[in-house]
Amino acid sequence: MLSNRTRAWHLSAMRIHLQNPGNDPLFDFSRAMWDAVAAQAPDVGEGHDVSIGVTPADFLACMRHAEALVCDASVIRALFPCPAPNLKLIFLTNAGLDTLAPFTWLPPNVVLMNNRGTHGAKSGEFALMSILMLANRIPAMVANQRHGVWRKLWGSVLRDRNLTVVGLGTLGGATAEHATRFGMHVTGVRAHPAPHPACARVIGTDALDEVLPETEFLVLACPLTEATRGLMTRDRLESLPSSAGVVNIGRGELLDQDALCDLLDQEHLSGAVLDVFTPEPIPPGHRLWSTRNLVISPHTSADDPLTYNKDSLAIFLDNLRALRDGRDLPNRYDIARGY
Amino acid sequence: MLSNRTRAWHLSAMRIHLQNPGNDPLFDFSRAMWDAVAAQAPDVGEGHDVSIGVTPADFLACMRHAEALVCDASVIRALFPCPAPNLKLIFLTNAGLDTLAPFTWLPPNVVLMNNRGTHGAKSGEFALMSILMLANRIPAMVANQRHGVWRKLWGSVLRDRNLTVVGLGTLGGATAEHATRFGMHVTGVRAHPAPHPACARVIGTDALDEVLPETEFLVLACPLTEATRGLMTRDRLESLPSSAGVVNIGRGELLDQDALCDLLDQEHLSGAVLDVFTPEPIPPGHRLWSTRNLVISPHTSADDPLTYNKDSLAIFLDNLRALRDGRDLPNRYDIARGY
Repeated sequence: MLSNRTRAWHLSAMRIHLQNPGNDPLFDFSRAMWDAVAAQAPDVGEGHDVSIGVTPADFLACMRHAEALVCDASVIRALFPCPAPNLKLIFLTNAGLDTLAPFTWLPPNVVLMNNRGTHGAKSGEFALMSILMLANRIPAMVANQRHGVWRKLWGSVLRDRNLTVVGLGTLGGATAEHATRFGMHVTGVRAHPAPHPACARVIGTDALDEVLPETEFLVLACPLTEATRGLMTRDRLESLPSSAGVVNIGRGELLDQDALCDLLDQEHLSGAVLDVFTPEPIPPGHRLWSTRNLVISPHTSADDPLTYNKDSLAIFLDNLRALRDGRDLPNRYDIARGY
Repeated sequence: MLSNRTRAWHLSAMRIHLQNPGNDPLFDFSRAMWDAVAAQAPDVGEGHDVSIGVTPADFLACMRHAEALVCDASVIRALFPCPAPNLKLIFLTNAGLDTLAPFTWLPPNVVLMNNRGTHGAKSGEFALMSILMLANRIPAMVANQRHGVWRKLWGSVLRDRNLTVVGLGTLGGATAEHATRFGMHVTGVRAHPAPHPACARVIGTDALDEVLPETEFLVLACPLTEATRGLMTRDRLESLPSSAGVVNIGRGELLDQDALCDLLDQEHLSGAVLDVFTPEPIPPGHRLWSTRNLVISPHTSADDPLTYNKDSLAIFLDNLRALRDGRDLPNRYDIARGY
């Protein structure tokens, strides 16, 4: 943990470095963005010495002084470890940090945070859209359209339908909230089955098999950990009703992708909307491209360029406030747990 | 209007005929369905002599006695006019009756009703889904998928985006309610700009041109009347921002379809989700099938087989209650107005 002395020093006037990945200007930080977010949280946002870097040279120069680093996982992969003698905090603008394991690159005594919370609005809307697309049979309509075929396909409203959401963090929680508002019966699944306000019931992962046969829509929204890797085996996917639809906004490795493709092609499942895959990018000619009743989103469900970095910076400042107040950091990443 | 004497006679024990179109058993009435709906509204649902027909012979036989007829527009087109000496009420399980004009087939003194209200839940969810699909760039993702191309396309959340909804009846009202709940700025458009609780503002159709340049999502949800036919001319479609998306759940003839296809192909509009077309079914080889960034739904947005007929019958009984209480019939169809 950070000592009290270090903490006080940090919060009076920190050296904070924001590094842009440089591969997509849509997701760049800017001085104006920092100033706007800081003005919304002046108690912890003002008084810092903030640098913004783009090139590796920018990064290495600023790391010689920076006490806090805000960047995405691609920056860590490309430029870390490096000399950073004063670094105390790393805030990553990603939620799932499984891509950075093992964490041998993390200097001792540096606190690692993810941006848990940033993705709620966007991911929740994407998940609701996906459920609505499956309920309205959009995947099959798109296939008919491709072949120039007019064929009536009837959908149904969400009210009273059974939704199972695996993972009740930011993504799954937002999904459950939307679904409950539309009158769905929502079953949440998580490691420890504590109640959740947006779920009619919450079960432990060990009870998943019991609810799959009555699941009409399955949304995977959990992090990839050793406990969740391969969670949706072929047997489990087969135990869903043939009218069921599957949504994955977590990680491709949460499910047996080949089994899912088989079941879709055999119409043992009615459809799927997937945002995550194994591998990414999906290679040309991969069977996913031509799997039946599947809609592919290129791992963009969680990220809105208009709000993403602003929301992440606001969450970073929330963590500085927690640090100042001596509270646990809400976004501290637990390497052993995996989220 | 119905005389008081007729009214009292009707409501004690009516002869009600339900005619199934016979072309899609998913949408058939059944005795069990009638009994279930009547049990929910026993004050007006019980005591009637209810017949259910499938064949033209069933229809002609029952029409010799029936006082009320419940059926869809296809039955009217195929079997009306016919001898129906006691008929007082026709309740059609369609909302848009433009396909039955001119109304010369309607016997004098028979009250015509549509099923306005039945489609709210299904259509509202379809419209919200369509807006979310456009915000998430699903039409372009589907095209990339067809070509096996992995390309990041970023969407955005609905909060603070500008939605214009033309028509604030059952469909448009439900659309506006969903959109407002997601934080959109909703402008409603209707003939007479009375306020609507789900709209930040309501304008008259004559002010439509003023809001189109700032419209990010346009939903057409009005009936087809002489006032709305061709409402979205090429000029009006061109005045939308090039990032705008269009949804049509009303009637194909509300817009200049060729202009819309041109603008989509030229990427002057970002996408469209259309449920209605000119003509229907869309013929093989029609340009609609291959228009860029367009998702085609085969005129099924409003109809959920699980709830459609039950909801329509419940609305029919609501009208019988209004008749009993001497109130205006909520679903009386105004031929001159066109809805």
